[in-house]
Amino acid sequence: MSKQRIIIDMDGVMADVYLRYIQRELEETGRQIIYAETNGLTEKGAFPNCMKHVNERDFFRYIPLMKGAVEAVQKLNDQYEVFIVSAAMEFPYSLEEKYFWLQEHFPFLSWEQFAFCGSKTVIAGDIMIDDNFKNLDHFKGRTLLFTQPHNIREHDHPHERVGSWQEITHLLL
Amino acid sequence: MSKQRIIIDMDGVMADVYLRYIQRELEETGRQIIYAETNGLTEKGAFPNCMKHVNERDFFRYIPLMKGAVEAVQKLNDQYEVFIVSAAMEFPYSLEEKYFWLQEHFPFLSWEQFAFCGSKTVIAGDIMIDDNFKNLDHFKGRTLLFTQPHNIREHDHPHERVGSWQEITHLLL
Repeated sequence: MSKQRIIIDMDGVMADVYLRYIQRELEETGRQIIYAETNGLTEKGAFPNCMKHVNERDFFRYIPLMKGAVEAVQKLNDQYEVFIVSAAMEFPYSLEEKYFWLQEHFPFLSWEQFAFCGSKTVIAGDIMIDDNFKNLDHFKGRTLLFTQPHNIREHDHPHERVGSWQEITHLLL
Repeated sequence: MSKQRIIIDMDGVMADVYLRYIQRELEETGRQIIYAETNGLTEKGAFPNCMKHVNERDFFRYIPLMKGAVEAVQKLNDQYEVFIVSAAMEFPYSLEEKYFWLQEHFPFLSWEQFAFCGSKTVIAGDIMIDDNFKNLDHFKGRTLLFTQPHNIREHDHPHERVGSWQEITHLLL
């Protein structure tokens, strides 16, 4: 039997983009945003300068890792067909930054496992791990919603919620 | 009924990559390679310096258009759900070049219709237009093989061969 295919999102799942926004806001304005206080807010609601920051060179190159992501993706990669799929096309300068970020932190993955797209409707697989409803809602397979501040108060949806990479490996391995 | 989804390749289909190799070879070595004499040869067979050239900055940014591609893709875009899917990940510097090339020549397409990947096995659609067997062979849908010098002598395959964009619009519109 062939391996099941898992589609894994980057920002908000493998990469802790909220931490990166907090870091850039502090560097630029001296304002310290508290992670827990962003719960229930959209990115734009929590980080007024976020659209400026995502358009900066190196924003995506230096995003901190989500806790436990490397170890978990490495284990999943042994048992599943793993694809890393990021909706990166909105920010064309992010494309190579995301490539080099993956290569640095996940050296056991090959570039053949990366896909950067505008819309994930074109992607097919068995399991999707993502923090955005717009990606999960149309996916024809099992859908895991990775908890992030912007989705933490959303309860009316058909997806399995996971709060950490530890929970994901517990579910899938 | 929702529109059928067409997956369209870039190099060798929308972009005339053989012309670009010929141009770079002439610029660099003064050697004029004749297009018709590349028939039946792989890219590496026809263009000994091709791996050097594809790794140069701007190689993919300035590829000539395939004849008739713009008009045909525009018409297809009205009747189908079009996605442009390029196996660009092997050359990370090509990613933004391909984005800006598409934006320049196909301004009627949106970035939401672009996907750059390593392997096209992760892509789903109804029709695929491509010049490479490695992409067409696993596709679950109708497959159109776009004639290029490297595939022109291959006859033992299950795909519909198309020799031009005119033939494609004749078939699909």
